[in-house]
Amino acid sequence: MPKRSVNYEPLSPLSFLERTAYVFPEKVGVIYNDTTYTYLEFKDRVCRLATALKQHGIEKGDKVAFLCPNIPPLLEAHYGVPLLSAILVAINIRLASPEVEYILKDSGAKILFVDTEFANTIESIKDNIKDIMVVSICDVEDKVFDGPDYEEFIDVKPESFHFGIDDEILPITINYTSGTTGRPKGVVYSHRGTYLNALGEILEYGINSRSKYIWTLPMFHCNGWCHTWGVTAPGATHICLRRVVPEEIFKLIERHQATHLCAAPVVLSSMAAYAENNKVNIPKGFVINTAGAPPSPTVIKAMEGIGCSVTQCYGLTEVYGPHSVCEWKEEWDELPIDEKARIKARQGVPYITTVYMDVLDPTTMEPVPHDGKTLGEIVMWGNNVMLGYHNKPEETDQAFRGGVFHSGDLAITHPDGYVEIKDRLKDIIISGGENISSVEVENVLYEHPAVLECAVVAMPHEKWQEVPKAFVKLKEGMKVTPEELMEFCKQRIAKYKVPKEIEFVDLPKTATGKIQKHILREWAKKKIATKE
Amino acid sequence: MPKRSVNYEPLSPLSFLERTAYVFPEKVGVIYNDTTYTYLEFKDRVCRLATALKQHGIEKGDKVAFLCPNIPPLLEAHYGVPLLSAILVAINIRLASPEVEYILKDSGAKILFVDTEFANTIESIKDNIKDIMVVSICDVEDKVFDGPDYEEFIDVKPESFHFGIDDEILPITINYTSGTTGRPKGVVYSHRGTYLNALGEILEYGINSRSKYIWTLPMFHCNGWCHTWGVTAPGATHICLRRVVPEEIFKLIERHQATHLCAAPVVLSSMAAYAENNKVNIPKGFVINTAGAPPSPTVIKAMEGIGCSVTQCYGLTEVYGPHSVCEWKEEWDELPIDEKARIKARQGVPYITTVYMDVLDPTTMEPVPHDGKTLGEIVMWGNNVMLGYHNKPEETDQAFRGGVFHSGDLAITHPDGYVEIKDRLKDIIISGGENISSVEVENVLYEHPAVLECAVVAMPHEKWQEVPKAFVKLKEGMKVTPEELMEFCKQRIAKYKVPKEIEFVDLPKTATGKIQKHILREWAKKKIATKE
Repeated sequence: MPKRSVNYEPLSPLSFLERTAYVFPEKVGVIYNDTTYTYLEFKDRVCRLATALKQHGIEKGDKVAFLCPNIPPLLEAHYGVPLLSAILVAINIRLASPEVEYILKDSGAKILFVDTEFANTIESIKDNIKDIMVVSICDVEDKVFDGPDYEEFIDVKPESFHFGIDDEILPITINYTSGTTGRPKGVVYSHRGTYLNALGEILEYGINSRSKYIWTLPMFHCNGWCHTWGVTAPGATHICLRRVVPEEIFKLIERHQATHLCAAPVVLSSMAAYAENNKVNIPKGFVINTAGAPPSPTVIKAMEGIGCSVTQCYGLTEVYGPHSVCEWKEEWDELPIDEKARIKARQGVPYITTVYMDVLDPTTMEPVPHDGKTLGEIVMWGNNVMLGYHNKPEETDQAFRGGVFHSGDLAITHPDGYVEIKDRLKDIIISGGENISSVEVENVLYEHPAVLECAVVAMPHEKWQEVPKAFVKLKEGMKVTPEELMEFCKQRIAKYKVPKEIEFVDLPKTATGKIQKHILREWAKKKIATKE
Repeated sequence: MPKRSVNYEPLSPLSFLERTAYVFPEKVGVIYNDTTYTYLEFKDRVCRLATALKQHGIEKGDKVAFLCPNIPPLLEAHYGVPLLSAILVAINIRLASPEVEYILKDSGAKILFVDTEFANTIESIKDNIKDIMVVSICDVEDKVFDGPDYEEFIDVKPESFHFGIDDEILPITINYTSGTTGRPKGVVYSHRGTYLNALGEILEYGINSRSKYIWTLPMFHCNGWCHTWGVTAPGATHICLRRVVPEEIFKLIERHQATHLCAAPVVLSSMAAYAENNKVNIPKGFVINTAGAPPSPTVIKAMEGIGCSVTQCYGLTEVYGPHSVCEWKEEWDELPIDEKARIKARQGVPYITTVYMDVLDPTTMEPVPHDGKTLGEIVMWGNNVMLGYHNKPEETDQAFRGGVFHSGDLAITHPDGYVEIKDRLKDIIISGGENISSVEVENVLYEHPAVLECAVVAMPHEKWQEVPKAFVKLKEGMKVTPEELMEFCKQRIAKYKVPKEIEFVDLPKTATGKIQKHILREWAKKKIATKE
């Protein structure tokens, strides 16, 4: 029997807002400081954004970029842009100007919305992106760019829209990831994929119409693991947050009786420290979902100690954020907290909506035995895998070789089937939840005239888990100080990517001349950095 | 960007069992009396069923029929049959032999599995269905048909299967509905539709890995509103139940600390009566999902009184069972119980996964105003609407006329957008040009302490064309005269709505506990009333 329009509606997370604004029109959907929007007001603002974008020529397939922290305009963009079948590009606010310029050009963005706090990032590249209309979002400072600000921009009579799409495989967003090969790659998400991932999230974390979700996780990071849509689906409340500061988080939890948040372990560490110093508690059962790095048992214990329930999930930008979860079992309820924390450090098993994940021997492509010992690479496939890299068919094919997505993460499988990451196939450094490509940093260092050879590896850090450390061999007769090299990097890449230590050495190499990073990693581990 | 196999897996509820058997292999997935199957055992039995079916020649598109109550073999069939891309036909166990014969022939079933309790139904038509292999399911009696019984049938070495399908629009089941026009119609469900409906159910009722679901709702009824798959998805536990008897239900709730059940209001009435007589209570927060007829406020009050949380959902076989729900709002939490019960009698708003429903003026096909007064017909569209009627293209087109599915239910829309059914198009009583909602009159009768069950239908009348007639079943040991009941109604509703005749009877019911109004209508037609 063929499908027909009466029984086939392409899946799109847009439908969540349509339904929630109908069911809960008067309910507060979005909170930001003292501003609240009901779901009807939220929908109205979304429709006004879409109408204004349309009036500025945005149509199906066009890209609209946002450089903006977790405030309502960026949330609205997750609906207003796709409402025109256009594609949202939410950019990491910590990137340096050249990186943002690259993303704007690679994606082909037609309009850029910039929160004025980040105007400086754009100022220096303004001449290089003349074709792109820039709209200021004036949340904390006055307007800096010509033309309307965001509120003026959306001050139009809203059209009415169909909250759907005509093909569920169409792109909805492009999220740039710092890949292994220097330049960021644009990861393309579909309407179908985001719909299913959003449902997967709320199923996994029990988000329902009574939940209140605090926006600690950046919306520009995998669209906030699709929570930008997922929280809306059951009619829960979004609590926006400009700056992720523990004091502010605890205040919001108390003020709004919040129930959920997602954050990298580094955020949890700072929350735990704050809670300890300030004798703060949290409503029992507050749900925390963490990822980006395995949370240390110490952090898990601390957070559970103040009333939270911490769960780890695991994924990558290429799989819409989370793909697996350390699914909790009732029989573990009564374990001692140390034992619980040890289990919770595992990356676990696929979501209900993701299903397809395995750990393969990189040579034979056969699944490794479930012995808790044998290392293999985590691979995934199914609806939770990206459409591909924007404009990079070769890199896409490479990532999808053998019909699976290669995560680049090395893991073991425990006898109970739960996966645990042991190392990284690629040399990604995860600092405070953000991926840093060592290759990208190395490439910058290599730009310096005094650098002969270099290698960047992760160095343990008290607060950020990992920070980049560079080992450098200088050219003969050339001189430069570590500080000068760091300053050189700062001009070119985001601050968090700049090596926190630089050591001049003869680099250890294999017989064929490959730098032996595993040795450098051992060297870097000898001390734990504290410098920010 | 085109989809490819790495990022596109056709949606199928089969994936739920694949994932749950991986994540919770040792967890009890199915309970039936003193038998339990872990999810790994459940999956193994499913694979053995599929393997055996394959050995008996079943392939893609073939139909396999089951005439069986809510015991493990029927649950296994919901996976084992589709595993071959074959189609399950679960038949209502209360049907008469000619009806079953019609369904077997209309669907073209190749194998029929029969619980021996219902062997009689088949015995008399055995000669007419010679082409169909019959397998006995010997749960309560010995084998009656030649050949292997179910356990012997599945006693094979299981092959390993891909728990998926190559096209998500393919049929997974055919569910026969007793239409209004005589012959039952085969409603065809797809893998995609059942996947989405199952997720919609568990999202709506908060079913998670700790839930225990009692099988009071027949699995042959819309595949148990897709709970056959939905309960498996998060790794909750199925508790099978052969006979829906209040005593047994309460025993299971206590024994297994069950958390959820679905049932028609008549089942709730009998549960409430049993609870009252036996001073039974239920763990607080036990979730009951009811549909099939609007539950009377009296029943809702009684069930909430013993600790249950009752929610009404609404749908039809043609929309995979439930489509809408009386979504509860926090601001209603503190209302008096009468007021709550009044709200809970509404059919409400669409599920997160269904979205598209409206109430249209039958003439203009325009939405009725949200005034809580104007009657229109409920229509639905989207992924939760059947593929169509099996082998009935004309009836399918008729049901889908105007691009929407016509429910045949008459409803109003309240100012808050919640829909409330006033009657079936065919159940409405038109008396002297005035519409009388049979549901309204029934709700008044239910308020009387002596009334256990009732149904009001049209009775021909010399002067008024139609008048309401009530069929009532009294509670055990209770007494009241028809005149007293009429007087009771007169105090509460307009005189023209008061039944002109009241007869005490055992109400005829369908297998799912729905009162069979068409039979009552026949009874009522036997004489023409003259009393005003």
